[in-house]
Order: sequence, then C-alpha cells, then structure tokens
Amino acid sequence: MTETVERLAARLRDFARERDWEQFHTPKNLAMALAGEVGELVAEFQWLTPGESASLDDETLARVRSELADVTNYLVRLADVLGVDVLAAANAKLDENGRRYDADLYRGSARKAPPLPP
Amino acid sequence: MTETVERLAARLRDFARERDWEQFHTPKNLAMALAGEVGELVAEFQWLTPGESASLDDETLARVRSELADVTNYLVRLADVLGVDVLAAANAKLDENGRRYDADLYRGSARKAPPLPP
Amino acid sequence: MTETVERLAARLRDFARERDWEQFHTPKNLAMALAGEVGELVAEFQWLTPGESASLDDETLARVRSELADVTNYLVRLADVLGVDVLAAANAKLDENGRRYDADLYRGSARKAPPLPP
Amino acid sequence: MTETVERLAARLRDFARERDWEQFHTPKNLAMALAGEVGELVAEFQWLTPGESASLDDETLARVRSELADVTNYLVRLADVLGVDVLAAANAKLDENGRRYDADLYRGSARKAPPLPP
Repeated sequence: MTETVERLAARLRDFARERDWEQFHTPKNLAMALAGEVGELVAEFQWLTPGESASLDDETLARVRSELADVTNYLVRLADVLGVDVLAAANAKLDENGRRYDADLYRGSARKAPPLPP
Repeated sequence: MTETVERLAARLRDFARERDWEQFHTPKNLAMALAGEVGELVAEFQWLTPGESASLDDETLARVRSELADVTNYLVRLADVLGVDVLAAANAKLDENGRRYDADLYRGSARKAPPLPP
Repeated sequence: MTETVERLAARLRDFARERDWEQFHTPKNLAMALAGEVGELVAEFQWLTPGESASLDDETLARVRSELADVTNYLVRLADVLGVDVLAAANAKLDENGRRYDADLYRGSARKAPPLPP
Repeated sequence: MTETVERLAARLRDFARERDWEQFHTPKNLAMALAGEVGELVAEFQWLTPGESASLDDETLARVRSELADVTNYLVRLADVLGVDVLAAANAKLDENGRRYDADLYRGSARKAPPLPP
C-alpha cells in the first residue's frame, strides 16, 4: 500500500491522543519542535562541501533520513492541527513561483532569484 | 485528483531543470533553504500565546499556509535529491517512537519525553 | 578581568588555527553551525509554557546556558570571519528600531510590531 | 567608548520596558525570535558557494551585518532575561572544548569532530 500524507496525519493524531499529548501540540510548540529538528538536519551538513553533501556515506545518509523523518512528522502534525492541506498549499505555491520565476529569464541564475528558487 | 508527494517531487524536479537550477540544489544548500523557511514559519508564532497560535485570524493563517508550502517544497525537494522516501521514513520513525514512548508510561507528560513526542 | 567580545573572538581564532579548522570556518558553514545550535536552544523550550520558560529548574537552566554558549561562540566566530563588529551593529540596529517603533505608539502591542520588537 | 554586552543588555531592557514589551519577552518567545532571525541569516548564504560566502559584495554584507545585529540583540536579550552571562558561558564552553578536542588529535579534521568545532 502506498503511504499518503493523510494517513500519516491520522497516525500522528492517534499517537498524540493515546498519550494525551494534544495539550502540548499547539501550533506554537509544534513550530518550535519543527525548528529544532531542522536544526539537527542542517547540522549534518554544516562541515561538508556542497559536493560532499551530494554523495553521503551510508552512516550519514541514515542519520539524515532519520532527521528528515522527524521534520516530516512535525510538519505534517503542525499542518494537521492548523487544518492546512500541505500538498495543496505546496502545489499552489509552486504554480505561483512558476509565474514569478519565468524559466527563460531566471535560467542558471540564483542571483536574480534570491528568495526562493524551490 | 489527489496530490501525492511523488507528484510534487516530480514537479519540483521539472521546475529546477527548466531553470537550470539543479546546480544550486545540493543537499547542503537545500537544507539551508529549508532552515530559512522554517525560520519564517516560527517567526509567525513568536509573539503569540500557545492559545492564540491555535486560533489564528484569516490573514495570519494565510501567511502560515504560505510558509508551510515553502517548507514542504524544500523538504520534498531535499528528500528527492537524496533519494529518500520521506513518507516511508516518517512512518518508520513513528513505529519506532511508538515502541519508545509507551502510551501508558508517557501519558500526559512532556517532561518524561523531552526530545520528541511527535 | 571582564571578558569582552574582542577577546572571545581572539580565543576562537586561535582555537581554529591551532586545529587547522580555518578551512571549515567559511561564513556559509558557520551560519549553518549557528542555526544548528539555535535549533538545540529552541528545543529546550518547545514543550514549556511561556511561564514555565521564565522559571527554569537548575538542570534545564544549565543546559540552556550551555546552548547559549554554543550560539555565542558561533555568532562571534562568524562575525569575526566576516569582519563585522557585532556590538556596533547591534547598537546601530537598536537605534534604528528606536526610531521605527515609537514608544508611545507601540506601547503594549506586539500586534502592531510584527517583525522584531527586540 | 567601547561598547559592552552589559551595556547592550541594559539598552535592550530599557527598550522593552519603555514599550511595555516585557510581557512578550519570555525566554520561549525570545528563543523563537532568535530562531527566526537566524533563519534570515542562513538564507543570505543558501545559494552561495562556501568560497563566495567568504567574499561578499557590499550589498550582501550590509544585509548580513543587519541580520547579525538582530541575532545579537535577541541573544543578548534572551540571556539577560534568563540571568545568564553569555561571555562567561561562552568562555567556559571554549575551555571545555579545548580539553575535548585535543589540537594534535583533531588537526585538520571535521570528520572526527562532528558536533561542534567552534
């Protein structure tokens, strides 16, 4: 069976309810938890060159995968608590960025597109 | 049609290729971009009480939704570049956390479970 | 003797040189290291209420102090590598914010001053 | 006159009191504000190579200086609210790291010293 964001959100909801952790899962707290996990993810790459970051050894990749999992869980949980459909929001933003960053105009340039070439 | 993470990853791949931005999308750079967007998300909640964060006005919710979209796009793009299936990784981590944080033992307590009640 | 930022910067400079770590201490890498440490700091507060965060037990305060030390070291090292005088920059920004956020106009309101009441 | 951390902390204290913003300046909130500003700082470097990050053009350096100022202000304010002497804490941590990372043993290696060569 293919996993979906909806099913993951439902599992996270059950997980919190079974432990009576819903009281801690305010958007403010979950955003902080997300920031904490992203900090751990960034730390994995801090001393690597960009090239090294693209060819991780198995041990580092396993740690990175684990951090990506934590980030994903908090992101999906936060969105669920807020009632936001993240995939719909992400696709809408990508549509918007497609209009904003014309392919011919911004080709090969991060300079012209400082904020977010996604 | 229901959107999926796979389809979003494919769109982001096309988006980068069409702009010749693959050269910028190293894991190191994408992790930084993710951290930047999470910083913007956290900033939305910084002066709100936990209670206020749970009942956002429409304008704030729209900004939060936009930040969640940016975070999702960079997360999915980063995972795609690394060849990581985020939903599989997130579910595996949740299985692990289910064993680690016994529901009866950790009920109602964030104190006992400092690192990550997801 | 009172410690100063300049003296700390000098110690950090020696520390890096003695270990031949200057090669890793690019502004990009140091900004990532700073982000990683701030993630750890934020994580200390994530499940606490704002009130609880203001009256930490000794054990938590010791961990927070340790994280603040890491953040300070990377901040001072990053600024030193960039040739930025952080205290001068911080004071200049505070002057600017004093003009931007008139005391009478913004009294008691975080709402009117969303970006950064420092 | 040379600026000091103590004097900056005092100015930030006055700034908050004059605006009745002390109510917003809980450690939890200030840690979030710090994370938000560090996110902006990291974003300045996200698409630059490590080499480019070490030779910024004037415009980028001015933005980075401004972000460093924001980070410094929130860090000093947070430490002040918690009653932590950041320079003392940073120096103590550096002493500790000096013992932990023997200069001869760790020379030239970020690999052996994953968590924090400061």
